[in-house]
Amino acid sequence: MSSAHSGPNPGGPSSSVAVHSAGNARKINFCQWCGGPTKHEIPDGEEKIRAICTVCDKIAYENPKMVVGCLIEHDNMVLLCKRKIQPSYGLWTLPAGYMEIGESATEGAIRETWEEACAEVEVLSPFAQLDIPLIGQTYVIFLARLKKPHFSPGPESSECRLFAIDDIPFDSLAFSSMVVTLKLYAEDVKAGKLKFHYGIINKKPGTSPSDIHAYTLDYHLQS
Amino acid sequence: MSSAHSGPNPGGPSSSVAVHSAGNARKINFCQWCGGPTKHEIPDGEEKIRAICTVCDKIAYENPKMVVGCLIEHDNMVLLCKRKIQPSYGLWTLPAGYMEIGESATEGAIRETWEEACAEVEVLSPFAQLDIPLIGQTYVIFLARLKKPHFSPGPESSECRLFAIDDIPFDSLAFSSMVVTLKLYAEDVKAGKLKFHYGIINKKPGTSPSDIHAYTLDYHLQS
Repeated sequence: MSSAHSGPNPGGPSSSVAVHSAGNARKINFCQWCGGPTKHEIPDGEEKIRAICTVCDKIAYENPKMVVGCLIEHDNMVLLCKRKIQPSYGLWTLPAGYMEIGESATEGAIRETWEEACAEVEVLSPFAQLDIPLIGQTYVIFLARLKKPHFSPGPESSECRLFAIDDIPFDSLAFSSMVVTLKLYAEDVKAGKLKFHYGIINKKPGTSPSDIHAYTLDYHLQS
Repeated sequence: MSSAHSGPNPGGPSSSVAVHSAGNARKINFCQWCGGPTKHEIPDGEEKIRAICTVCDKIAYENPKMVVGCLIEHDNMVLLCKRKIQPSYGLWTLPAGYMEIGESATEGAIRETWEEACAEVEVLSPFAQLDIPLIGQTYVIFLARLKKPHFSPGPESSECRLFAIDDIPFDSLAFSSMVVTLKLYAEDVKAGKLKFHYGIINKKPGTSPSDIHAYTLDYHLQS
């Protein structure tokens, strides 16, 4: 997660996520292009309330954000980073962060891995797409390998470490998306075949965002 | 493509895409939350120029948008829609459109198929993720099947039709993303095995957005 986005929290909702990621047209009060005040209406031919500029008529669309990251395999272990920033300070995550305009998902995943784990990686294959509708995020995780056997904590990590699959700290992971990704990976490795997984992570109503195990994995599809 | 987004053109750049999809922090002149004027600077700890509110300090992040759609198989044919809207009026496409906040990619793909082809579908498996960095879009296409053998043009389509693979109108498709998706699909069918594909569509410099064959497919990975 680049510091560029350490505010709009990947993987766990917060008030800033409600504005930035999960979207709420009613919180958009002004047009970002002309500065005019907005009205909140359903535009002609549409079905959802949008913020529409009362001066220039432009509509401010909001869409889900992609979080891209790498699951790095090395000597039958996987690389995790301990977060030195909020949210989920002190908990473990795969290197991942928001995809930027102008880059591809693989470029974003490689960049985030460099920023968080100072590791140069080659992306090998797509591993998972996990949608989290509640917070307007989609995780896209790639399998990758180290180009050189080197890694060290970047500015947002306090530690980077290789874990054998049986030693993955499932109770100290930063986000539900990481629990799901690493569980699917461990299952695939034990079954002897890595697949591509699609799924929807629905957080259980009334649970805390910090309860990373309070989710259901729905619509799980594999290729 | 829902009318909600028929402006910010999926698959072919235009001036509106430059603002809405491909992103340009310098075009964001006002804060959409407080209305304050923005400055354009690289925030502390970041690397890209962002629009930052000079009153409330909020940063306006821009991220790529996901376009979700269905490749519907029926009796060894695939369902295409002829576009009754710009861009690419009169050309053929898979039913697809921008993913909305609050829905999953599969829900979005099912919704767009209902809107454009009046078809009820079941999603079977993920088929492709295709990034188009130039216009800040990522296509996510699912294989699907008709729940009932019924389809008809929605308000944005003039015709919906099943095509045998050898009859797909590759020269009359609406977007490069559709050329790539349908080529990969035809290859997989001929090889007897459907895979999941990841790739980056880079438009050839200096070519027109309407030249749907002026691209390279880079970083093609399969699962």
